[in-house]
Amino acid sequence: MSATPDLLRALRAKLRRDMPITKALGLRVVGREGTGLVLSSPLAPNINHKGTAFAGSLNAAATLAGWGTIWLVLREHGIRSHVVIQDSTVHYVRPVTGDFTARCKSPSTHAVERLVKAVGSKGRGRIELDVTIADASGDAVRFHGRYVAFR
Amino acid sequence: MSATPDLLRALRAKLRRDMPITKALGLRVVGREGTGLVLSSPLAPNINHKGTAFAGSLNAAATLAGWGTIWLVLREHGIRSHVVIQDSTVHYVRPVTGDFTARCKSPSTHAVERLVKAVGSKGRGRIELDVTIADASGDAVRFHGRYVAFR
Repeated sequence: MSATPDLLRALRAKLRRDMPITKALGLRVVGREGTGLVLSSPLAPNINHKGTAFAGSLNAAATLAGWGTIWLVLREHGIRSHVVIQDSTVHYVRPVTGDFTARCKSPSTHAVERLVKAVGSKGRGRIELDVTIADASGDAVRFHGRYVAFR
Repeated sequence: MSATPDLLRALRAKLRRDMPITKALGLRVVGREGTGLVLSSPLAPNINHKGTAFAGSLNAAATLAGWGTIWLVLREHGIRSHVVIQDSTVHYVRPVTGDFTARCKSPSTHAVERLVKAVGSKGRGRIELDVTIADASGDAVRFHGRYVAFR
């Protein structure tokens, strides 16, 4: 985990204040691995008819892990911009049977530099991110999202 | 809307009992258009940092509109089986700025017959569904999901 406690605190406060559904989902900002954000959620509030995690909750966690990764990376580059998701694809490889984590893979230095440069010069940039969701038995969901940052 | 009040009541009871997050999302079973299920949600519990609907909430509503459509169609064919989503793709075309509906397009008769036949003979069948999310200004999100039904 990289040491960015102030930014992580700011992100936690933002989610709590601006996105009330994160509380219902039980979403927690765990920290970072490289520059990728790690979130966690308990199974209980997200349980479905089969006693496993509802696909919609898993998708929400993955979407936010990607979103938060960009938010943190841009802040570290001194950029305050809007970030929205444009599209995503998700594969539910196997059921999630317990509490779960959503781990965003660190974007490449090249992808981050291109994003920062585009937002700085054109006011708008894109980046694609991969997120994996795992429970105690390992990886269970693969998510790929395309996000847009703009001033 | 087709007249299947008993099945719709059973679906509402199932969501309320087995999927607690639907309450937090404010998801409501509105009815059906053809054989496609229509759900609605208020913006307030799903609001994000930009004052529009959180992508994860929109995806959850779309996922469930597809899931519920299959659940209803199978029940109408006298089949009680498990239904899970395998993968999905979603395009967030523009922000959702108010209360929203998730409308699943009626699957073709051919697709339903193939599903019913496969579940009946092999104990397992697949179907692909399209869901559109709209607010008062019109369509805003396009979703495509692949689901599996199995005994």
